[in-house]
Amino acid sequence: MYYVGIDVGGTGVKAGVVDESGRIIAKATIKTAVEKGADAVMEDMAEVAGQAVEKAGLTMEEIEAIGIGIPGVLDPATGIVPFCTNLGWHQVPVIERMHELTGRPIYVDNDATVAALAESVAGVSAGVKNSVFLTLGTGVGGGIVIDGKVYSGTHGVASELGHHITHMGGEKCTCGNRGCWERYASATALIRMGKEAAAAHPESALAKFTDLTAKDVVDSAKAGDETALAVFDQYTEELALGMVNIINFLDPEIIAIGGGVSAAGEFLLEPIRQKLKKYVFYKDLPYSEIKLATMGNDAGIVGAAMLGRKDA
Amino acid sequence: MYYVGIDVGGTGVKAGVVDESGRIIAKATIKTAVEKGADAVMEDMAEVAGQAVEKAGLTMEEIEAIGIGIPGVLDPATGIVPFCTNLGWHQVPVIERMHELTGRPIYVDNDATVAALAESVAGVSAGVKNSVFLTLGTGVGGGIVIDGKVYSGTHGVASELGHHITHMGGEKCTCGNRGCWERYASATALIRMGKEAAAAHPESALAKFTDLTAKDVVDSAKAGDETALAVFDQYTEELALGMVNIINFLDPEIIAIGGGVSAAGEFLLEPIRQKLKKYVFYKDLPYSEIKLATMGNDAGIVGAAMLGRKDA
Repeated sequence: MYYVGIDVGGTGVKAGVVDESGRIIAKATIKTAVEKGADAVMEDMAEVAGQAVEKAGLTMEEIEAIGIGIPGVLDPATGIVPFCTNLGWHQVPVIERMHELTGRPIYVDNDATVAALAESVAGVSAGVKNSVFLTLGTGVGGGIVIDGKVYSGTHGVASELGHHITHMGGEKCTCGNRGCWERYASATALIRMGKEAAAAHPESALAKFTDLTAKDVVDSAKAGDETALAVFDQYTEELALGMVNIINFLDPEIIAIGGGVSAAGEFLLEPIRQKLKKYVFYKDLPYSEIKLATMGNDAGIVGAAMLGRKDA
Repeated sequence: MYYVGIDVGGTGVKAGVVDESGRIIAKATIKTAVEKGADAVMEDMAEVAGQAVEKAGLTMEEIEAIGIGIPGVLDPATGIVPFCTNLGWHQVPVIERMHELTGRPIYVDNDATVAALAESVAGVSAGVKNSVFLTLGTGVGGGIVIDGKVYSGTHGVASELGHHITHMGGEKCTCGNRGCWERYASATALIRMGKEAAAAHPESALAKFTDLTAKDVVDSAKAGDETALAVFDQYTEELALGMVNIINFLDPEIIAIGGGVSAAGEFLLEPIRQKLKKYVFYKDLPYSEIKLATMGNDAGIVGAAMLGRKDA
């Protein structure tokens, strides 16, 4: 059986035909015409899905279902996107409209949840019942897989792991609260911490960058710069303690890490593992493994497609 | 069909025969002979289960399964309790031994999880797919029900909600970490905050108690004492923000509150609901209802019994 996955981003729409096992057969992409509004973008989504199906040598009738990953909040049951800042959408009935345009069963979920499903079907968490996926980028996105299925909660708003509060009264967050984990554990946070440290330590390698990136902080730490190492140590501390919270809530078998900061690889994971050893509640019992996500840019297409698999 | 539930506490062992719907048919209790060790306590557990079955006018062969709630960590799959401070147990094979003693299929889980199941089968969360149960006592215990089943995680250590960190670097916790939610949201925390406020405000009603209890703080706040009201306001703030974390992780339909502090009733719940309105991530979408648990002291027996129900 074949499925189509559509990954809708602020700059591009990617569609792919995916088989039962999560392998991509054919792909097509188009720029996201955000300025033309939701209806035009959905017509493009249907168009690019059709192109991918044609490239795969199939017809739309041979597609079991179409899954869509949206960069925002939505109710997977009704398929209505109440708002999506990146796309400028408001109260958009995605399932209804995309079904009209394609004639196929439509499934939607948010992009982090979709990526979690991709890792769970064909990536680092393949075959694992309970897993959590984290994406460390501008913010911290989270996806939860329980019993092999994506868990979206009662009202579709679960797994907002970046907005769980680890520092009550701390840094102001975009969500209106203070002290959300993503203020301390995102790439944005790593950059902020790096800039603060650079200002305090003009002798540091960090002070030489005019527009410091998360990669600059990581590279400077790898090169042994003391200030960068201290910043990175604090950053992995924040990450590790948030992961303790994930373990104390959900006790997943694997916590998979993706997103920009995950490019640091084992240099990122090893200190987290060392810290978790100290911080987990039950020190004599096994606990979650921390691994790098492996699906990369394909996660959006594959995960969206797998939303249509009956057992996912 | 009939089930036996056994609620093992540090002072007493309670057993009850429970029907399919979570109704208790007969009960029996015995003091917990902690000093005699795990084997003696398990013999007493089998004994008191037998007494309850006899009172119900049944024989052990008519009992579908026996469920046991343990006040500590354990692996529900193997039934081994690695350690339980309250009972002084270490590496106790509860399923194996209790099966030898009773001949019935045995299920075990920790007491907060068992209480969550009781509320989900026959209490405030009856008929609800996803719910969280919190017990506000000496610590903060948590139980998670997903899709009508208790969720214990991959290694049996999920739902340690009291030990999720809300104040990184904050108050030292019994678990070795700092800033765990239960340091701010338990009855113990309410007492600590009350004592600190009493010392700072000798004019307060709180300063009149020689051995301040959580109930004293609640009663003084209800009576309008300004210091007590400020303490209670801070306490409900801590509770509400931890519940925001529960919502951002799990988006349950209901968060049910039990334990000593829940005796404050609507006086506790109303400020939490007001604060949640401000703090939830998606302010235009529906979110968890906050309700009082209704099973009281029977939660342990009923929830343990329901562990044996095939669909629970």
